[in-house]
Amino acid sequence: MTANSIALEPSADPDVAEAIVRAGGELADLDSARGLVWLAGAEGFPDLGANIEWVQLAAAGVEDFFTSGVIGRSPNVQFTSAAGAYSRTVAEHALALLLAGVRAIPDHLRARSWQQQELAGRIGTLRDSTVTIIGAGGIGRTLIPMLAALGAHAIAVSRSGKPVPGAVATYPIARLPEVWPETDHIVISAPATPATRHLVGADELGRLKPHSWVINVARGSLLDTDALIAALRSGVIGGAGLDVTDPEPLPDGHPLWDLPNVIITPHDSNPPSLRRRAFADHVGANVARFVNGCELLARVDPVMGY
Amino acid sequence: MTANSIALEPSADPDVAEAIVRAGGELADLDSARGLVWLAGAEGFPDLGANIEWVQLAAAGVEDFFTSGVIGRSPNVQFTSAAGAYSRTVAEHALALLLAGVRAIPDHLRARSWQQQELAGRIGTLRDSTVTIIGAGGIGRTLIPMLAALGAHAIAVSRSGKPVPGAVATYPIARLPEVWPETDHIVISAPATPATRHLVGADELGRLKPHSWVINVARGSLLDTDALIAALRSGVIGGAGLDVTDPEPLPDGHPLWDLPNVIITPHDSNPPSLRRRAFADHVGANVARFVNGCELLARVDPVMGY
Repeated sequence: MTANSIALEPSADPDVAEAIVRAGGELADLDSARGLVWLAGAEGFPDLGANIEWVQLAAAGVEDFFTSGVIGRSPNVQFTSAAGAYSRTVAEHALALLLAGVRAIPDHLRARSWQQQELAGRIGTLRDSTVTIIGAGGIGRTLIPMLAALGAHAIAVSRSGKPVPGAVATYPIARLPEVWPETDHIVISAPATPATRHLVGADELGRLKPHSWVINVARGSLLDTDALIAALRSGVIGGAGLDVTDPEPLPDGHPLWDLPNVIITPHDSNPPSLRRRAFADHVGANVARFVNGCELLARVDPVMGY
Repeated sequence: MTANSIALEPSADPDVAEAIVRAGGELADLDSARGLVWLAGAEGFPDLGANIEWVQLAAAGVEDFFTSGVIGRSPNVQFTSAAGAYSRTVAEHALALLLAGVRAIPDHLRARSWQQQELAGRIGTLRDSTVTIIGAGGIGRTLIPMLAALGAHAIAVSRSGKPVPGAVATYPIARLPEVWPETDHIVISAPATPATRHLVGADELGRLKPHSWVINVARGSLLDTDALIAALRSGVIGGAGLDVTDPEPLPDGHPLWDLPNVIITPHDSNPPSLRRRAFADHVGANVARFVNGCELLARVDPVMGY
């Protein structure tokens, strides 16, 4: 058993295998490895020998590994999840929705003639605009430098209100009402909990501006759908880019399908084709940390349960 | 006459006036100023006293000021144009078109039901992709850091091939055929000259990939329209985002209007609403340079004629 030996189970994915080796790991059998990258669910998870110090799981949410006892059975093993691995693709998607909105891409796609004067009047810019990001986790934090490159300013809203790098200001969620005067657009990227249900409703939408776009890449429940439809219909806001909806899936015939300034992507901001690669990158980053004795990313806390 | 006195003629625009003062200038009459910001055309341009050392014009193309003799009459005056002032808005527009394409926004906007599996398969990412920017002027150079923030790599193609900051490689136009193997997407932002007509035609499009998007924010003549339509119809490339077309304006009933993976914006990447503000920023930057004795931006060369 060498110090950098990693098992890849239950079957070897070539991208992940390559990422392990490139990060300084060495592929090994389960009974002679120090680390295990487990690509499947809780069912079928192997009994671990004392040689295993670290297990990398492939999901961001690892509830099943708690309820099945996998994590509890191995108190001396550090488990890590895939949390954060997909932040970049979701942040890119949020930016794509926001830019498409601000640059009036839906209006342009509907046009079948050269309506320059009319369409030019609908084009805005992210430059010097202020984007309020609700939820300063991996997605929100990853989005900030993308916005900065376009000259936009980010306000972060988080549970704690602790300053977020790159944000011009960070507010605790309790002070959310204070952000509206400065806000041009909002991106919702906070976890869904009972406390965040309908966090953005009629009141909040009413404080936005006729050019404001509302982007939701978190969970449908954070945004009050009826209030959103009313705000869109009355022109209180400019439009909405929704990767998640409430209800979800959005049923055929739902009014959101027919509103002109709504871009719906059916919860596909992190599609399977990109997930594989992003997970391989995440594994590579953790193998490099493991081999070098650094703290791992996305450590699962056995007490907190995530 | 103070060292920082600037005249604003023929009438005071409040945004420009504010930019002058914020940059350290002081508004003054034409006969007591050292600099003049001229907001109109060549016709009506005033006779300049010996007090004027610098004239900022409001257009990027200043041919009229040559042909009318305005520039020739004042050999001791440094003229500057608005060239480069609008690079940021056009670069943002190019990114909006490219991201909308890569994230399959046109397909999503056509959907009227939750087609998750089908649509997820069409979503790509700019991350780790290579975008070849043809034309490394203000727009191309401004686009590079925007792409970098998304994890995309830029190859620059310019007349000289001199290394462009931030690009992973720069090629002279004569070596254009070498870029295709590495290129995922292209952005055309080069000047229209007889030498660049149909620079991207059937051969070049044929070396792209089925996921490739072609963005044109330069002039329609650089891209062979018939070859583009053929490449789109046959699936040789993924799509096109066109702020400029050939012919332009694009006539009603032209086949480009009806192709599913084409986003047409009618030469409105730099709309009047944004132009005003961008010009004010440009004036501010030049006033700050003038006041501090630094070299001015967008200096007009009386010999070269631009």
